[in-house]
Amino acid sequence: MNSALRLGLAGLGTVGASLGRLIETKAETLATRVGRPIRIAAVCARDRGRDRGFDLSQAEWFADPVDLAKRAEIDVFVELIGGSEGAAREAVEAALKRGIPVVTANKALLAHHGVALARLAAKKNTEILFEAAVAGGIPIIKTMREALSGNDVARVYGILNGTCNYMLTRMEKEGIAFDACLKDAQRLGYAEADPTFDIGGFDAAHKLAILTALAFGCEIDLGSIFIEGISKITNEDIQAAAELGYRIKLLAVAQRTETGIEQRVHPAMIPASSALAQVDGVTNAVAVDSDLLGSILLAGPGAGGDATASAVLSDIMDVAGGVLPPTLGLPPAKLVPYKRARMRAHEGGYYIRLSVFDRVGAFASIARRMAENQISLESIVQRKRGNGDNAGTAPVILVTHETSESAVRKALDLVSKDGHLKDEPRMIRIEALD
Amino acid sequence: MNSALRLGLAGLGTVGASLGRLIETKAETLATRVGRPIRIAAVCARDRGRDRGFDLSQAEWFADPVDLAKRAEIDVFVELIGGSEGAAREAVEAALKRGIPVVTANKALLAHHGVALARLAAKKNTEILFEAAVAGGIPIIKTMREALSGNDVARVYGILNGTCNYMLTRMEKEGIAFDACLKDAQRLGYAEADPTFDIGGFDAAHKLAILTALAFGCEIDLGSIFIEGISKITNEDIQAAAELGYRIKLLAVAQRTETGIEQRVHPAMIPASSALAQVDGVTNAVAVDSDLLGSILLAGPGAGGDATASAVLSDIMDVAGGVLPPTLGLPPAKLVPYKRARMRAHEGGYYIRLSVFDRVGAFASIARRMAENQISLESIVQRKRGNGDNAGTAPVILVTHETSESAVRKALDLVSKDGHLKDEPRMIRIEALD
Repeated sequence: MNSALRLGLAGLGTVGASLGRLIETKAETLATRVGRPIRIAAVCARDRGRDRGFDLSQAEWFADPVDLAKRAEIDVFVELIGGSEGAAREAVEAALKRGIPVVTANKALLAHHGVALARLAAKKNTEILFEAAVAGGIPIIKTMREALSGNDVARVYGILNGTCNYMLTRMEKEGIAFDACLKDAQRLGYAEADPTFDIGGFDAAHKLAILTALAFGCEIDLGSIFIEGISKITNEDIQAAAELGYRIKLLAVAQRTETGIEQRVHPAMIPASSALAQVDGVTNAVAVDSDLLGSILLAGPGAGGDATASAVLSDIMDVAGGVLPPTLGLPPAKLVPYKRARMRAHEGGYYIRLSVFDRVGAFASIARRMAENQISLESIVQRKRGNGDNAGTAPVILVTHETSESAVRKALDLVSKDGHLKDEPRMIRIEALD
Repeated sequence: MNSALRLGLAGLGTVGASLGRLIETKAETLATRVGRPIRIAAVCARDRGRDRGFDLSQAEWFADPVDLAKRAEIDVFVELIGGSEGAAREAVEAALKRGIPVVTANKALLAHHGVALARLAAKKNTEILFEAAVAGGIPIIKTMREALSGNDVARVYGILNGTCNYMLTRMEKEGIAFDACLKDAQRLGYAEADPTFDIGGFDAAHKLAILTALAFGCEIDLGSIFIEGISKITNEDIQAAAELGYRIKLLAVAQRTETGIEQRVHPAMIPASSALAQVDGVTNAVAVDSDLLGSILLAGPGAGGDATASAVLSDIMDVAGGVLPPTLGLPPAKLVPYKRARMRAHEGGYYIRLSVFDRVGAFASIARRMAENQISLESIVQRKRGNGDNAGTAPVILVTHETSESAVRKALDLVSKDGHLKDEPRMIRIEALD
């Protein structure tokens, strides 16, 4: 048996503690599979005293993760602190500067500094592995970096935020309103006290930024992502979607277009009969469309201590086996700059819900505004008049054929100005799947 | 740039020609991704003259694949001949004996001789890579061998045969009978002139045999697989399944049980609302239940020149990057013998369709036979009486709660002997998914 692989583990929260227990309880199996023992040689966490369910007496304790990364006698630095700045970033940089490979679950760090860190790693002849940073236990990083390495990717997309998917699933299955659903999610620990990062689409955007670089061999550009969260989705939208043969999911999509690469996170209608539409609750899923494979889909747990630890562990086992693929799939010098495709140039179908004052000519006026903007309609449904708050108005639902975002926005702006609408128009993009 | 990786390519059929074209047209991208050029140095095929769409003038031609494997100046031997014996086996053995890694798409070779070949490879300090051998372009081998390497697998299962899934999908969506559907599949090239290997479940069994070894760290045992094909599935079964909330798929399942490891290929009813149930047509899918990840699902193209070539190429690129994981996930000496769980010990729910003579007491007699064998029924539906050939009988559909295969077989045997049935009873297993 070869010498042990010595880990420096910074962060002993849910994932770190799960990883520690796995490495202890599965020690023999892991050693057999990888040909050498895996040993936690150094650790760092805020509270030294707490019992994490595994033996840490043989590990050297550090009060400061940067100190650990700089000084500990380790072969791999495992960063499970989180956050794009501060200790996590400094410690990762310190480890890379020593030429020690880094395994991390930190999406924010990579989304903000991935390219710079990849450059630093390459300069020091080492790499960063980060399977756990995107879609938890789903092996999407390995799949994109290794299994698809001969493919040209056209689109990568998926359900990358468990909180949103949990909420949309419950709104659909149980007819619960958004606010009640959010409260439930918070009570059950599926949503934070401040849920903005999740329900605003920002968490999914961080993950998408990383996938985009792997898919298209380009630099990471988090700031260019179009982001729209789920907070305006209503039960009426979900019901209308069902009637039209769709389900609503928060999708993150990166897609090659004629003008550049689109990166977008928004609620989308997808065909109810697709496999992706069956991905419910906190489960995540990622699909990749590419030249050789057509379409592949991976679904699994997007979060959770054990699932995330499993992904961290697979990276550690790769390092133990001597596998160090380029951090972002290519040597950093070969990454091309990200070329942004503007959201206004996006093309697709649109679902539009209008609350129209019940007046002669309103309907004709709306139809004219659509036609003026070359928007062809697949279906128009006028529902029965509202009552209470909605007395005197009727909901009108339009589904467009493929058109451009800019045409839709312009048309809706004109319809609003024409004074026929009680409320702001609602629009949900339809994502075509094969 | 490092020196080129020299391939010896035996077999220039659909996949081989696809691979050759990819390596030519994507030469620059592949070299960038992997850090060295990939070059076809030697080839072997039956017809030397045929144009395969890529330049072979720089490759050394061999008339005999074994000769190529023995003598060509190559770094990797790529076997795309097929078949478990003869040239394919001899050539692979010859390459391994030289210590040259082998990349193959040959499921039959691995299902029959995988362990012996893995031993030979390990002895010569090399390995066999075979991503393309199971589920075409879906990276299930890499996922099981690398991404799940820290997991204990409880069950691996999936839709592994595109022909069967294509036929079942058309039978369901269009109401076409089995025989007509098979003729169509043959006309469209989705089924062979002799379709037994596909529709009898044998193709799926070959793939399952390989997955079982990877999932449970055991030796391959193709001969122990329980195999039942789809030829007895009727449109009535498919319709009854739909009414009960299920869809019928040919599943291949390997599952750890108290008495050993079950390996089975048979039509199964799965919940219509599951992601797996949406996997239609020639698409394949594999799911893995494990301790850390819960459940993950991978879906994608199970066959086709480009998709299979993509999988072969990802193996070649791993070799180019110096990645040579143990052939069957573990060093061969660490594989445990396969411990068979007998099919009679299988536990699950069952769908049973009986054609019952319309006589007083028949129904009661059937119910008694079930009760005698401790089979508890979830639902019993008696349909309206048949006419024509089925005059004087009524179809009865039973759905059982979880019970054992042996109890079901015994009860059905008794019901048959009681003389209440016009035809042989039909039984379809229900697969519980999470």
